[in-house]
Parts: sequence; C-alpha cells; structure tokens
Amino acid sequence: MNKDLYDAGLAVRRQVLGDAHVDASLAAATDFTRDIQEYVTQYCWGDLWNRPGLSRQERSLINLAMITALNRSHEFKAHVRGALNNGVSREKIKEVLMQSAFYCGGPAALEAFRLAAEVFEAMDAER
Amino acid sequence: MNKDLYDAGLAVRRQVLGDAHVDASLAAATDFTRDIQEYVTQYCWGDLWNRPGLSRQERSLINLAMITALNRSHEFKAHVRGALNNGVSREKIKEVLMQSAFYCGGPAALEAFRLAAEVFEAMDAER
Amino acid sequence: MNKDLYDAGLAVRRQVLGDAHVDASLAAATDFTRDIQEYVTQYCWGDLWNRPGLSRQERSLINLAMITALNRSHEFKAHVRGALNNGVSREKIKEVLMQSAFYCGGPAALEAFRLAAEVFEAMDAER
Amino acid sequence: MNKDLYDAGLAVRRQVLGDAHVDASLAAATDFTRDIQEYVTQYCWGDLWNRPGLSRQERSLINLAMITALNRSHEFKAHVRGALNNGVSREKIKEVLMQSAFYCGGPAALEAFRLAAEVFEAMDAER
Amino acid sequence: MNKDLYDAGLAVRRQVLGDAHVDASLAAATDFTRDIQEYVTQYCWGDLWNRPGLSRQERSLINLAMITALNRSHEFKAHVRGALNNGVSREKIKEVLMQSAFYCGGPAALEAFRLAAEVFEAMDAER
Amino acid sequence: MNKDLYDAGLAVRRQVLGDAHVDASLAAATDFTRDIQEYVTQYCWGDLWNRPGLSRQERSLINLAMITALNRSHEFKAHVRGALNNGVSREKIKEVLMQSAFYCGGPAALEAFRLAAEVFEAMDAER
Repeated sequence: MNKDLYDAGLAVRRQVLGDAHVDASLAAATDFTRDIQEYVTQYCWGDLWNRPGLSRQERSLINLAMITALNRSHEFKAHVRGALNNGVSREKIKEVLMQSAFYCGGPAALEAFRLAAEVFEAMDAER
Repeated sequence: MNKDLYDAGLAVRRQVLGDAHVDASLAAATDFTRDIQEYVTQYCWGDLWNRPGLSRQERSLINLAMITALNRSHEFKAHVRGALNNGVSREKIKEVLMQSAFYCGGPAALEAFRLAAEVFEAMDAER
Repeated sequence: MNKDLYDAGLAVRRQVLGDAHVDASLAAATDFTRDIQEYVTQYCWGDLWNRPGLSRQERSLINLAMITALNRSHEFKAHVRGALNNGVSREKIKEVLMQSAFYCGGPAALEAFRLAAEVFEAMDAER
Repeated sequence: MNKDLYDAGLAVRRQVLGDAHVDASLAAATDFTRDIQEYVTQYCWGDLWNRPGLSRQERSLINLAMITALNRSHEFKAHVRGALNNGVSREKIKEVLMQSAFYCGGPAALEAFRLAAEVFEAMDAER
Repeated sequence: MNKDLYDAGLAVRRQVLGDAHVDASLAAATDFTRDIQEYVTQYCWGDLWNRPGLSRQERSLINLAMITALNRSHEFKAHVRGALNNGVSREKIKEVLMQSAFYCGGPAALEAFRLAAEVFEAMDAER
Repeated sequence: MNKDLYDAGLAVRRQVLGDAHVDASLAAATDFTRDIQEYVTQYCWGDLWNRPGLSRQERSLINLAMITALNRSHEFKAHVRGALNNGVSREKIKEVLMQSAFYCGGPAALEAFRLAAEVFEAMDAER
C-alpha cells in the first residue's frame, strides 16, 4: 500500500461521503474486505478524485450519470449523498436523472429517482 | 408530431451536433427512420436539452459518462463532437474518461479513449 | 407539458398498469418526481403505446423481454401486471422468460421467473 | 449430442435464418466452434423455438427486443432477417425499435435502426 | 426432457449447490417454474458442467467473474456457496473480486464483496 | 505516478500481452492517452496482476469470462492473446466460452467465439 496515496484518498472520501459513512466502512473492515477498501481509497479517491480538471461537483454529476447506467443501487445512493455534500443541489441531481431517462431508458431513470428520493427522505429525517 | 417542440429540438441539435451532422441525418431519413428521428428531436433535444438546471457543458459531461457506461460507440463519438461544440475542452473530456476507468472499469475507459482520440484526429484533419 | 398527450398517456397507463398503481404514483408525486412522471406519461404512454402497428399484447411481450435483459426488477414486476391486464396469459409470459434463458442467459431468466412468480402470488392473494 | 434434438433444431434454424446463412455457418465450423454450434442448435433452436405457446413471429419480436437491449449487433442483424423470414413486416420491426427508444434508451434504439436499415438494404440488393 | 441428461445434471447440481439448496428448489417448483428448472438442470448442469477441459474449481472462478459483471445478486450468492463446495478458498474468491474491481469497475466489485461476505456470515452461523 | 508500481506493471504487461502489443501502445501514447496508460499499468498490471492467490492462468480465465460478459471486443481480443501467452490452451479458452453461453447468453458466447477465432487465425498467420 502507498500510505501517502491512501491518506490523501481517505481525506477526500471523508469530505465527499461523510465521516459517518467512512467510519462505518472502516469499522466493518475484515480480512476479506480490507484490500478492496485500500484499492478504492488509493486509486479512486486518492488518485482520480484529487486530479485537477474537473470540480468535485462535476465529478459528482458524472458519477450519478455513470452509476445510473451501471444499475448499482448501493453505490448510487452513497453518491447521491456525496453529491449533496459536494454542494450539488437536489435540482441538479433531478436534471441528471431526467437526462438519463432518454439516454439510459425509462426504467433506469425511474429507479434512480426512487433511490434518490429515499436518500433525501433519510437525510431530512436525520436533521 | 408537436411542431414547436420539434423545431425547438432541431435548433438545439444543430447547435450541439453541428449542421453537417444534422443535415446528413435529415437527408438520410427514410420512411423507416423518420419516426425515430422525430421522437429523438422532440423529446431529447426539444424537451430535455432545453430544460434549465444544467448548462449545456454539464449535459455534455454527463452524456459522455452515461454513453461510456452504456457501450454505444456511434453515439459516443457524436457526443464527443457535441461536447467540443458546447465548449467542453479536450482536457475535461479526458477527465471524464479517467473517472470512468474506476467506475465503469478499465475496458470501458480504454474504448472511450480510443473513440475520443479518433474524433479528435478527424476534427484536426478537417481544419 | 403537452396536456393532450399527457391525458392520452394517462388513460393508457391506467388501462395497462391499473388504477391502483397509477393512483398511488400520482399521490406520491413530489416536486422532485413530478417532471419524470410527466415525461414518462407523455412520451412513453401517450406517444409510443398509442402508436398503431403492434397490439398491446405484443407491446407487453417485448417489454417483458427488454426489461428482463435490462435487469430492472421494479419495472419488470409492474409490466408483468401490465401484461396480464392486457390479456397476455401466464403461459405466454412463461414462454417469453424461457426464451430469455438462452438469449439473456440463465441468471437473467431465473430472476425473471422469481419476480413474475411473486406478482402472480400477490395477485392471487388480492382476489 | 442428442441427434434428434439437433436435427429438429437445424430444421427450424434453416427456416428462420435461411439456408444460405446456415450453410455458411456449417461450412465454417472448426474444431473450435463445432461444440457451440451444436449447443445453440439443440437447446435454442431444437428446444426453445419448437415449444408451443408463442408463434414464431412473436418469438422474433421478443428476440429483436432482447438483442437490442443486449447490444449484440451481429446477432441482431441475423434476427432481423429471421423476423422477415418469419413473416414479420418491416413496419412491425420498426415499432419494436420505437418502443426500445423509451425502455432501452435512445442510443440503443438509434443503433438498432441503423443495423436494421443495413439488413433491409442488403436484402433489397440481393433481389 | 432428456431423462439421462437431467439426472446427470441433478447430480452435479447437488454436489455444487448442496442438497439443501436443490431440495428447496425442487420442492418449490410449480407449473410455472418446472420447465426452466429442467432447462437449467439439463443444459447447464448436465451438459456444460460435465464437460472435461476445466476443473470444477475453474468453472466456479469464471462463474463468479461472469455473474459479478452481469449484476445478478441472487445467482451470485448461490455460486459463492458453490465455489466453496467445490473447494475454492475464500482467499481465491477474494482475488477474483479484487480483479473485478479493475475490469468490471468499483461499484461491481464492492457489491460482490458485500454479497460474498453475507454468504460467509450465513455459512459461519450455520455451523 | 508511482515509478516502482509502474515499472512492475510494465514488466507484467509485457509478459502477458507481448512486447509487440506494449511497444505499439507506448509508441502511440499522446498527451491525451498517457494518463490512462499509467493508471492501467500501475493499478491493474502493477497491483492486481502481481498479487498472489491466483495463478496468471487463472487470472486469464476470469478475465475472458468477465470481458465476454462486459461486451468489450477490443480488450477481449487482447486478453485471448494474453491467455495464450500465459499458457492457457485453446481448448480451455473454448471451455470458458462454452460456459458463457449459459450464463451470459448465446449472443455473448457466439460473439466471443468469433473474436477468439480471429485471434487464433491472426496468430497462425504470424508464424
């Protein structure tokens, strides 16, 4: 493991996904899952998310777009929270999902709207 | 067909994909393809692309992200041109594709880089 | 919004998915989801489902086929109900899913059989 | 290999895809590809396509729908020919692809229209 | 149905997925699901899994790889158990999923790790 | 860039994909593609492929399985060569693709057989 890259990645990951989410992930790590956590933290969060060229808000928008297409609900919900933490408005999230209705198809968009609404409700309840 | 929506869509489609591309599409339309052209022009270009809430540059970024995930090379190349027409820099396109390497996987990203490079080369040759 | 197209779509949507399903969707609409509901009702139900050329039963068959391939369980279950409402027999639904076992692969077909069986059980219990 | 199932499958395959296509496949078979040809001929053509419950035209419609979603252009083109051989009209093929524009998304539908048009042109030229 | 192929397939299926799993499937079979069970038992378990050329452990490894990519969680969990029954170590399963992080993308790998961990926990609790 | 990880990755990449393939990739690198080449070389080849736990032959088998499912023809062909370079026999490659016919579906398997046969022919011609 590259300790510098990991630490840089962990800092970004905390800022985007929130301390609660990351602390829970770290506490739940086992021998089985530790390596994938390190892989993701270094190469995704430490490398890609620290690159210049796109703002964090732009990275959140394209992530929501990609993960809607990829049909991965757990990650999608984490990145809805991430987008809000990065300052993306609910209105902009809605527009990304509207656009997905044409490009990814109706069933993909309807599912993404359901998942995003669940995140919004959970966050409203946490306040 | 909703003539107003179609005309509004055709105008956006020309601005984004370029007159050459759209003229070629219209000239090639047959009885078999006319309805899908009208469907796309009205609902995608006339409705979604005319919505406020995201800039055209942001719409281009999320389109490249979605279409990379969806593995549709013909549309991908059209939207690389569209992104450049909308003022997105090659550097930003590169960053979207770098980000896709983690979320969509390496083979998806490598293919997207190949396709985008082909578009850049073709455009450089057209000058 | 195109009111005529929306109304035409809402009527078809009620006939296919049932009043209970549609009333629940309308009652649950929020500022976040209203636009996607209008998009779907106009362009999918109002436009495509009102086109001549395929019967509603044929549209149901191809929808089950596409949504099995697309791996979208929520929409799949809604369209199993829709197919039955359109007069497609359980036997024909079974044949579509059998055919999907070869073309979409075994895991896709097995999942579709599970979901369809859940719908049948729920409907039998409703009687 | 189950000879009866294979022979039954080969007969259906010839009727649907045409003798020219099947003769070319058989002539091109090598030690590497013989087993997959037998697998497909027995289990897909010999078993599934010989089941009652759906007409061959209905099986063609759902195949076009599934293969559009699955993004497999070579098989898609073979099954456009197959659909026409089964008596499905070009108009009905168009309607399946229109419907895919909403459910599978615009890029999937546009690609399917391009591929189907290529088949139509090739067939018109063969006359 | 080919009785010999079915019986051969049922024997392999019991060895790989376990008697408990298979007995439950058989007991749950209905008129709706019986044909797909026979299709899968004959052609997948009876034919493919009985072919020489790959060991059962190798077949398990490639199945986990494919089903991770295909995003089918129910089948994935069944084949995690199958892999362990075939003598694949948890460590090797972990390596397949690590490799998927690059090729299938991070969200696919993270989901596969979650599902595999659930299977491991359930199996540890069964002891 | 982590120079050690890159160099370790480049060595594995050369062993698996061959010097000709890698030299061509390096010679073709531009400002646009250099970063993705470094990302892939470090994290895929330098990290994942150097992990213990699976042999290179096993890694090749699961790669062919995943990339068949992912529908990425360019990478698939590169990894057919890679598998052969790693000592996987054509017979074993055939078995992976046979297995994919059930799990990924017939169109996916037929395409993979076509692509693998193209690689074999090209390699036979190179001798």
